[in-house]
Amino acid sequence: MDIGFIGLGEMGTAMVANMLKAGHRVRVWNRSPERAQSLAQAGAQVVATPAEAFAGDAVFSMLADDTALREVVSAGLLEGAARGLIHVNMATISVTLAEELAHAHAARGLHYVAAPVMGRPDVAAAAKLTIIAAGPAEAIDRVQPVFDAIGQKTWRIGSLAQQANVAKLAANFMLASAVETLGEASALLGGHGVAMQDFLDIITSSVFPGPVYQGYGKMIAEQRYEPALFKARLGLKDVRLALAAAELVSTPLPVGSAVRDSLLEAIAHGDGEKDFAVLGKVAARRAGR
Amino acid sequence: MDIGFIGLGEMGTAMVANMLKAGHRVRVWNRSPERAQSLAQAGAQVVATPAEAFAGDAVFSMLADDTALREVVSAGLLEGAARGLIHVNMATISVTLAEELAHAHAARGLHYVAAPVMGRPDVAAAAKLTIIAAGPAEAIDRVQPVFDAIGQKTWRIGSLAQQANVAKLAANFMLASAVETLGEASALLGGHGVAMQDFLDIITSSVFPGPVYQGYGKMIAEQRYEPALFKARLGLKDVRLALAAAELVSTPLPVGSAVRDSLLEAIAHGDGEKDFAVLGKVAARRAGR
Amino acid sequence: MDIGFIGLGEMGTAMVANMLKAGHRVRVWNRSPERAQSLAQAGAQVVATPAEAFAGDAVFSMLADDTALREVVSAGLLEGAARGLIHVNMATISVTLAEELAHAHAARGLHYVAAPVMGRPDVAAAAKLTIIAAGPAEAIDRVQPVFDAIGQKTWRIGSLAQQANVAKLAANFMLASAVETLGEASALLGGHGVAMQDFLDIITSSVFPGPVYQGYGKMIAEQRYEPALFKARLGLKDVRLALAAAELVSTPLPVGSAVRDSLLEAIAHGDGEKDFAVLGKVAARRAGR
Amino acid sequence: MDIGFIGLGEMGTAMVANMLKAGHRVRVWNRSPERAQSLAQAGAQVVATPAEAFAGDAVFSMLADDTALREVVSAGLLEGAARGLIHVNMATISVTLAEELAHAHAARGLHYVAAPVMGRPDVAAAAKLTIIAAGPAEAIDRVQPVFDAIGQKTWRIGSLAQQANVAKLAANFMLASAVETLGEASALLGGHGVAMQDFLDIITSSVFPGPVYQGYGKMIAEQRYEPALFKARLGLKDVRLALAAAELVSTPLPVGSAVRDSLLEAIAHGDGEKDFAVLGKVAARRAGR
Repeated sequence: MDIGFIGLGEMGTAMVANMLKAGHRVRVWNRSPERAQSLAQAGAQVVATPAEAFAGDAVFSMLADDTALREVVSAGLLEGAARGLIHVNMATISVTLAEELAHAHAARGLHYVAAPVMGRPDVAAAAKLTIIAAGPAEAIDRVQPVFDAIGQKTWRIGSLAQQANVAKLAANFMLASAVETLGEASALLGGHGVAMQDFLDIITSSVFPGPVYQGYGKMIAEQRYEPALFKARLGLKDVRLALAAAELVSTPLPVGSAVRDSLLEAIAHGDGEKDFAVLGKVAARRAGR
Repeated sequence: MDIGFIGLGEMGTAMVANMLKAGHRVRVWNRSPERAQSLAQAGAQVVATPAEAFAGDAVFSMLADDTALREVVSAGLLEGAARGLIHVNMATISVTLAEELAHAHAARGLHYVAAPVMGRPDVAAAAKLTIIAAGPAEAIDRVQPVFDAIGQKTWRIGSLAQQANVAKLAANFMLASAVETLGEASALLGGHGVAMQDFLDIITSSVFPGPVYQGYGKMIAEQRYEPALFKARLGLKDVRLALAAAELVSTPLPVGSAVRDSLLEAIAHGDGEKDFAVLGKVAARRAGR
Repeated sequence: MDIGFIGLGEMGTAMVANMLKAGHRVRVWNRSPERAQSLAQAGAQVVATPAEAFAGDAVFSMLADDTALREVVSAGLLEGAARGLIHVNMATISVTLAEELAHAHAARGLHYVAAPVMGRPDVAAAAKLTIIAAGPAEAIDRVQPVFDAIGQKTWRIGSLAQQANVAKLAANFMLASAVETLGEASALLGGHGVAMQDFLDIITSSVFPGPVYQGYGKMIAEQRYEPALFKARLGLKDVRLALAAAELVSTPLPVGSAVRDSLLEAIAHGDGEKDFAVLGKVAARRAGR
Repeated sequence: MDIGFIGLGEMGTAMVANMLKAGHRVRVWNRSPERAQSLAQAGAQVVATPAEAFAGDAVFSMLADDTALREVVSAGLLEGAARGLIHVNMATISVTLAEELAHAHAARGLHYVAAPVMGRPDVAAAAKLTIIAAGPAEAIDRVQPVFDAIGQKTWRIGSLAQQANVAKLAANFMLASAVETLGEASALLGGHGVAMQDFLDIITSSVFPGPVYQGYGKMIAEQRYEPALFKARLGLKDVRLALAAAELVSTPLPVGSAVRDSLLEAIAHGDGEKDFAVLGKVAARRAGR
């Protein structure tokens, strides 16, 4: 397919590389153009404006947050696009913005698909992302070959674009809760002289298998929060978005509120750039350890 | 081995059956003697008093809660036992009582081992329990053949008996947090029209595999809370014990507090005998659904 | 003084009436001009644009929320104002917006004073408002005669305008906590058959005197939440602003989070337009009553 | 009247002194007899056993906690008492124990009145206590003259003794919430450079008058937590009793849970013997200050 791609962070760069490998033609744009060099060598066409990327069969975007996306879009991007273009936004953004964008695209005859992903840069590089897609079914059908080039599975979650964002935020909320809970459990165990690693061995080989408990649990057990796989500061961003999504439908998330408070405490103590697992440190500090 | 066994609920009965199968001689006692009939047919010797069971190489107990255990023990059980007897308590009790019992046994030349288990009656029947053991290493060594007859793995977690209880309560706390979080996520998703089952398919095949998310998640998705695999009322008991264990070492568990509040709300609405997953109903009700 | 006034809701109308009574000349503007009629009869000059009000010695604004204020200001208001004009914003807005406005005004040679008030419309009508002012001291000195016309006391809380907003939001947070606590206490007492009114009589005549406990307590005791003196929906707005102000300085407010969850629950059950005291209903419902 | 009095802590000693002043004959008992010396000089008859005090027209008790009271009562006190004796327990105990005692007394033809008090030792010395009484009305009528000798007002809250304990615990819960809220507000204000004392001046002279906000607020503003007027450790005891009372009627107290977590954190950091206002320190520490 003839694809545009906006936003070449670690995730975006890995995605584009896999799109190129799968034979798609990709025009790429990034605020800092140097990020595009390696992709140019791999066959991508580097363009000078977002508008040039916002063309072809479909355009994908992977920008850092609501602010970055609003800024790019507000520069007349939709007004200048050809009717029928499919815009697939793969970033984790707010439900409010997703809903706004879906309406704005539809009003101009464009298709808006939300397709946030689960998986970190190494997973993206291996083309093993889990993709959560929502929006017009026909549009998703058309971009499915591109999804196949970058992910191991695409889950369709609804016909309203923002539903994919809700699902992604719910997953991140669950992740946040699991890490907070591991931190609290660790503080409880430590108070009684039980080794966190021993406890982790038990639960990860029985009721709580999987990468979340193993990965974050190990960091908490070792009190080693750097290098960060997922920064506490970004974790707070996601929890805040989940709480905002819940507020839109008047839904209290008491555990979400508790995690938010803990993340604020981590940031207050200068640990915002450390791994999310630093919640273990917060729980230990509260217990005077 | 020559074993006594006190407490023939569903779990105890399944354990004794497997002990007998493995060739151990077992004297059994239960407050309601009729529970012992099937085991008598399988070769167990039914005795009339706890004191008769509290003899031989080792005695195992599996009573409902602190109160039941205190009552049986307070009738002079320890005073009448032969020095060197090993008492293995497999029930989930408070850390305070475990510590008291460890001291009381040691003072009379008896060995006290805490060996709470993970797994429900069907797991116990299949001799697949996960056993978390703590206490004097030599005593655990001696009863290991019995553990092997009822469980698939024994994890040794410390030399102080109560440490096994702490680990078990921490695991139950994590379970409680996971179910509460599933309930809250379900309310968030439902508010935006995303099907919980679709969401579960995504997370259980990626970041959150395992029986907890699949099993409780399915009940929440189907809003089907009976028959109860693990009752909300018993869930509250365990969360209360975890909070008490944490209080002993001045450790706040904010998520534990949140789950406690939700379980109280479930019980207030008459759902205490329903499955723990009824936390999904609590979260939905708060959101007006 | 020669004053402009923007925003003629219940509060604004009462304030302007008192300014006129004290002899000040007031040009008033409101989005819906009919709100200005009664003030015109009392001597106010009704103007057709915010820009006409944004002139003279000082201009006061009392708009509903951040959005309303941003909209009015963004229409070139500051650019068109004469250097040295003092803008006194008496509304409860976000700390972020207050800080932005302070900078924007200073950059154009204008003075920005934040002067949020405590007191409801009846208090405003009686010229008994409590005024919390912050910003450049000299500017506050100059408008003090106007404050004296509408309030019983002006408290100066700092030299940065947004500090007055922080103080006002902290006061509203305390109010919210007190009402939530009354609601929870009421649920506890009700469960044991103790009459809330009896309890209120005790505490308001001893440790908790004052209008908050008496007023909201009485509504909770009588389970009468209409007519609303302060709507739950607006209460949530203020709690949200307090949490946001706290987040700016990485400060967790666990009680604030708890109140937010309760207010969301009230709104989810259709009680957003009822009085804030409806938190008593939330607490009772959680307890199954 | 002919009175017995059990428990001569600071509060009990002050009460007995005022009973003597009012002309009552008082037999006093305390575990540590030296506490009785000053009262003996004032006319009290010191007795050697609780049983000797548990006689006459009425006996009052003011012991430290449930454990102390259970210990004294369990030594056959009720069995040895003359039918018709009125036992007035003025201590803050659990609702469960109050209910048990009411039944146990009634079963032996004794009257049990719960009459917990509000006010610290200086208030007790001034005979200005607020008394919250519940139990059989006739029994309360008979001891009213004694109440009049030690308190400024007696509030009758119900016919079941434990209802007075519920009311007292609810009042203490409200106090705890107010102090926690002051602490959180202080952390918010401090983060923005607003002086807590300035804020206190505003709220205590408007919406939040009264001793709680003035007294604890001042300690928080001055970060001075010693000498303790009401220790954090005892505050936790009361919050725990309130949560337990609420649990008996399946009532969640989310703010209660939050305060409990904060008090645990204070104790974990070695501040259990400091004043309850040390919650301000907890809130500041969480915010990294």
